[in-house]
Amino acid sequence: MEKAPLLLTIAVLGGTGKEGKGLAYRWAKAGYKVLIGSRSSERAVTVASEIMELLEGSSSLVGTSNLEAAQLAEIVVITVPYSAHRETLESVKDVLKGKLLIDVTVPLVPPKVTKVQMPAAGSAAQEAKEIVGEGVEVVAAFQNISHEYLLTDEDVECDVLVTGTSKDARTEALRLVDAAGLTGWDAGPIENSVVIEGLTSVLININKQYGSTHAGIKITGASQKS
Amino acid sequence: MEKAPLLLTIAVLGGTGKEGKGLAYRWAKAGYKVLIGSRSSERAVTVASEIMELLEGSSSLVGTSNLEAAQLAEIVVITVPYSAHRETLESVKDVLKGKLLIDVTVPLVPPKVTKVQMPAAGSAAQEAKEIVGEGVEVVAAFQNISHEYLLTDEDVECDVLVTGTSKDARTEALRLVDAAGLTGWDAGPIENSVVIEGLTSVLININKQYGSTHAGIKITGASQKS
Repeated sequence: MEKAPLLLTIAVLGGTGKEGKGLAYRWAKAGYKVLIGSRSSERAVTVASEIMELLEGSSSLVGTSNLEAAQLAEIVVITVPYSAHRETLESVKDVLKGKLLIDVTVPLVPPKVTKVQMPAAGSAAQEAKEIVGEGVEVVAAFQNISHEYLLTDEDVECDVLVTGTSKDARTEALRLVDAAGLTGWDAGPIENSVVIEGLTSVLININKQYGSTHAGIKITGASQKS
Repeated sequence: MEKAPLLLTIAVLGGTGKEGKGLAYRWAKAGYKVLIGSRSSERAVTVASEIMELLEGSSSLVGTSNLEAAQLAEIVVITVPYSAHRETLESVKDVLKGKLLIDVTVPLVPPKVTKVQMPAAGSAAQEAKEIVGEGVEVVAAFQNISHEYLLTDEDVECDVLVTGTSKDARTEALRLVDAAGLTGWDAGPIENSVVIEGLTSVLININKQYGSTHAGIKITGASQKS
């Protein structure tokens, strides 16, 4: 794990959800300042103190509204259900300029969640890019990680594929993957997001067909530069 | 590896290419009757005898035209470059009714082969389904396996994700994955083919970014029913 720069602040929008809470826990633990954002600031405050308790330390974790969290952070992570994706992004887009947006959203369409069904933009991450417009780099990551892993300190048997609008954005996001104790890979341009978002449906299908609960993927045949 | 029914015949269209040749080798070795198809029957005959030499045994391998191969087989596998995909399917579609078509094609668009760029149908496999029409089950598989592995008897460090137009078709294809000495997974409906075809671009990108040559994927957290 890499030592995080002390002042870098990460907002986790929808951070009261399971995936967001898990990521917030991992990053706070790694030394990042983390702002939990939610539609309900009260709920965000509660979840922030729950995570503080788990960490038993001097971590910096604050709960607030999605807008304030996005405003105060350098990196904004969105972990809302797909049904709240557009609305949440619309509500914060004015404060995102010059920042990095990391989209964790999987555009599942119930009830057929085992079938890949992407929005017209090509993927949730490309849709996010359309919504937030120029001046915001967008990355897709963490779609394939079961949230159950994140609130423990176990090794996670699933890699993180990272796509994004620029190489710099992917590199920055890969630093956060590393800080979360996970193995990340540069998976190419934002157009490749369909693969990582769609993999979630494939993994759900595998869970269904083979009776597993936490199917994941690992990249083989390549190793990280050190 | 499962013992293959003695009389089942597999046609490998474009079987003189590297991927097709490797798959033909593996299936002939497992006891299947294999027909190597090619636009040039002569070339197909040469490749069939090259594989026979590698096998040093009594395997059944014959080289012929794509059309004759498709005509004589119960299972038809297409392993041509994407540029020849439509033309090859058009040339054999009249003899495919009632058969299983396994599509190995990756719709790469040079020179940006690290970027996922799917045809209008959603994926090459869905395009194949549109071309061959009713009465033919279509499966996508083997897109992520480096051909270098197939002509050796090494363990392949890459799993095979299988999508298809029906559960029966996927089950049949998974039998061939198993016969080829590989680990396969039911990856859901044909609409999920974008994930497995697109993964090839992601893996090419990983090879480029991390200096590897054979990046692959493994499913974790699930195990095969026995």
